Amino acid sequence: MPFVVIMAGGRGERFWPRSRMAAPKQFLNLLGDKTMLQLTVERVEGLVGISGTYIVAGSDFKDTIMEQVPHLPEENIIIEPFGRDTAAAIGLATLFLERKDPREVMIVLPADHFVCDVPRFQEVLKSAVAAAWRGEEIVTLGITPHRPETGYGYICEGELYDTFAGTPAWRVLRFLEKPDYAKAVRFLSMGNYLWNSGMFIWRVDLVRQLIAKHTPQLAQGLNKIGQAIGTEQYLAVLEEVYAELPRVSVDYGILEKADSVLVMRGDFGWDDIGSWTALERYAEKDERGNFIEGRGVLLDTSDTFIYSPGKTVGVIGVESLIVANHRDSILICRKDRAQDIKKVVQALKDKGLDEVL
Amino acid sequence: MPFVVIMAGGRGERFWPRSRMAAPKQFLNLLGDKTMLQLTVERVEGLVGISGTYIVAGSDFKDTIMEQVPHLPEENIIIEPFGRDTAAAIGLATLFLERKDPREVMIVLPADHFVCDVPRFQEVLKSAVAAAWRGEEIVTLGITPHRPETGYGYICEGELYDTFAGTPAWRVLRFLEKPDYAKAVRFLSMGNYLWNSGMFIWRVDLVRQLIAKHTPQLAQGLNKIGQAIGTEQYLAVLEEVYAELPRVSVDYGILEKADSVLVMRGDFGWDDIGSWTALERYAEKDERGNFIEGRGVLLDTSDTFIYSPGKTVGVIGVESLIVANHRDSILICRKDRAQDIKKVVQALKDKGLDEVL
Repeated sequence: MPFVVIMAGGRGERFWPRSRMAAPKQFLNLLGDKTMLQLTVERVEGLVGISGTYIVAGSDFKDTIMEQVPHLPEENIIIEPFGRDTAAAIGLATLFLERKDPREVMIVLPADHFVCDVPRFQEVLKSAVAAAWRGEEIVTLGITPHRPETGYGYICEGELYDTFAGTPAWRVLRFLEKPDYAKAVRFLSMGNYLWNSGMFIWRVDLVRQLIAKHTPQLAQGLNKIGQAIGTEQYLAVLEEVYAELPRVSVDYGILEKADSVLVMRGDFGWDDIGSWTALERYAEKDERGNFIEGRGVLLDTSDTFIYSPGKTVGVIGVESLIVANHRDSILICRKDRAQDIKKVVQALKDKGLDEVL
Repeated sequence: MPFVVIMAGGRGERFWPRSRMAAPKQFLNLLGDKTMLQLTVERVEGLVGISGTYIVAGSDFKDTIMEQVPHLPEENIIIEPFGRDTAAAIGLATLFLERKDPREVMIVLPADHFVCDVPRFQEVLKSAVAAAWRGEEIVTLGITPHRPETGYGYICEGELYDTFAGTPAWRVLRFLEKPDYAKAVRFLSMGNYLWNSGMFIWRVDLVRQLIAKHTPQLAQGLNKIGQAIGTEQYLAVLEEVYAELPRVSVDYGILEKADSVLVMRGDFGWDDIGSWTALERYAEKDERGNFIEGRGVLLDTSDTFIYSPGKTVGVIGVESLIVANHRDSILICRKDRAQDIKKVVQALKDKGLDEVL
C-alpha cells in the first residue's frame, strides 16, 4: 500500500486577513464545514488508510493537526523544526517512510487544494501509483488549463510514454515558472501546457536517489537526521542539521533535473484556491455577481466578493472588489490585483505590524 | 445677555458606521480631540456664558451631554421625550427661556457644525443679536456657496435691509429645499443664493408669536407643557402632549411663512460636516490624495478616505472610495455616492439589523 505525504507547512499570505501566519489556508474551512486539510485527508483515506497517511508541518501546527485529524496516529505527523522549502520537507518524510518500506510509492499532496471529482481523483492516483511502481519514473499530475492563469507553474507535456491502469502518461519536456499574462495566453492555446498541480507520485528510494544526485548537500543532512531517528538525540540533531539545509523547492531541486519525469492529466476538477478570487469561483452569487458571507446591504454594487462573517457591511456603488474582514484587519482589493495581497502582507511586516499577520 | 440653544437631538445616519442611533455625529470627535458638541459650546461660551447655554436633546443623550459638557448646569439640558422635528424642539426651549426673559434674544445653533474662524463667528452673532433685538425680525445666517452643493437647503437673498454692528442684513426672498445638481450649479452662479446654515437668531417672544400664528396646533401643545413646568406633573404632561405635537421643521413651519426674515452672511468658514466626504475636506492627505485614520498599507490607491481606528487595513488598486470601519460594521462607498449612506442605514433597518445602527 502506498504512502500519502500531505504537505501542510505553508504559511498563509494570499488569504490575508482571514489566513494568518498562525492559521494558514490549509487549516481553514474556506469551502464549507471541513478544513482544506480535513478534505485532503478524507480524499485519500479510502486509498491508503489513515495509517498510511503522513502530514508534514511546522511544530506550531501540530496541535491544530491533531485537533482537525484526531484519528491520525501522532507518529504520522512529521515535524519540521523550521521551514526549509519543499525539497527538505519531502526529504524528511522519506526518512520515516524508508524505515517502513523504501520500495513503496509515496504520493505527495499539498494540504490546501480543492478537488471536485474525488472518485476520478482516486482513479488517477491509482494509475499514477502503477506508473511509479517500477521506481524509475517520477509521475506528476498536470491540469488541463481553462483560463490564462498567471498564478500557477506549468508543465510542458511531450510524447506519450505509456498507459497505466487506463490512464496515459506523457513525458515531461520541461517545467515552467509562473508566466506573465501574454505567456499564459499562449500556453492556453498550445494544448500541451498543463498547470503544475504540485502533486507528485514516486518511489521512496527514487526520491532519496534523486536528492543524493541533484542536491547532495540536502542528502548529507538527511543522512545525519536519518541516523538519529529512534534515538534520544533525534530532536537535537534534527534542529541542528535542519537549520543548515539548503532552501530549495522540489520543483527546482529535483524535478527539473531528473531525467525521467512523466505527467498524467488530472481531469478531476482541481483548484489550488490560491487566493480570494479562486475561492470566488466556488461561491454562489446573486444576480449582479456579488457574493457575501456575512450580513449587509449592497447598493448598486456588482461582481464583488465579500467575506465578512460577524461584521455587517454596507457597500455603495462599487464593482469588482474583494472585501475581506477578519478579526483586527480589513482587506479591500480590486479583483485583478489579488496576487498583490502578498505585497500588502510584506508591507505590514515591514511596518512591524506582525500581530495582524 | 442672549440665550444660546444648541440643537443636539439629531440621529446619526450619514456617518454610519461611526455614528449610531445612540452616538450621532454631535457627540463624536470627528475633527480632533473635542466632540462637535464640545466645540459648539466652546464657541459661544465667551459670548453668553455657560449659564446662558441650553442644549435640547432626547433623554437617552442626557448622560452623554453631562459627560461631554460637565460644567453645564443640569437644568440647562432640555429633554425631548421623543423627536418631533425642529419646530417642536425650539418651541420647547422657548418655554424655559421665556420664564427667564421673554424679551431676550435666543440664538439657535446646530450641535454638529464646523466653524473655522471663531472670532468672526462671534462677531457675526453679535451683529445678528443686534438685528434681532427689536423683536420684529428673524435673523438667519447664510453661507456664500463655493461649490454646487446638493446636500444643503438654500436662502435666496433680496435687497439690503440695514446694517447692524457693522454687518449688513438682507431681506430673505425665500427658502429653497436641497436642489438637484443642475439647480445647485445655477444657484452658485447667481450670487444671491446662500447655503442655509440652520442657525437662527430671534427674540423668544417672537418665536412664540410666530408659532401661535403659523402652527397653532404646536402652540396649543406648548401652552399645555408650559403650564406644567415647575409642577410635579411636568414629565407626565410633557410625554403625553409631546407625543401629539405635529412633526414639522422650523424652516417649513415658521421661517418660510414669516413676513420679516433677514439674512446675514456667515463669512467665518462653515461646514455642516454632513457626511464622510465633508469630513474629508478637513483631513490631511498624502501625495496621492489618500487619508487614513488607523494603520494600514495602501497599494496603488488614490483619492481614498479611510476611517479605521483600531483595525488594520490593506487596500489594493482602488480610487475615490470611502472606507469606514467601526465596531461591528464596515462601510465601503464610492465617494460620489456618500449621500446614499442613509439608504444603507434604512435598508439595514428594514432587515431588522437594528443593533448595528
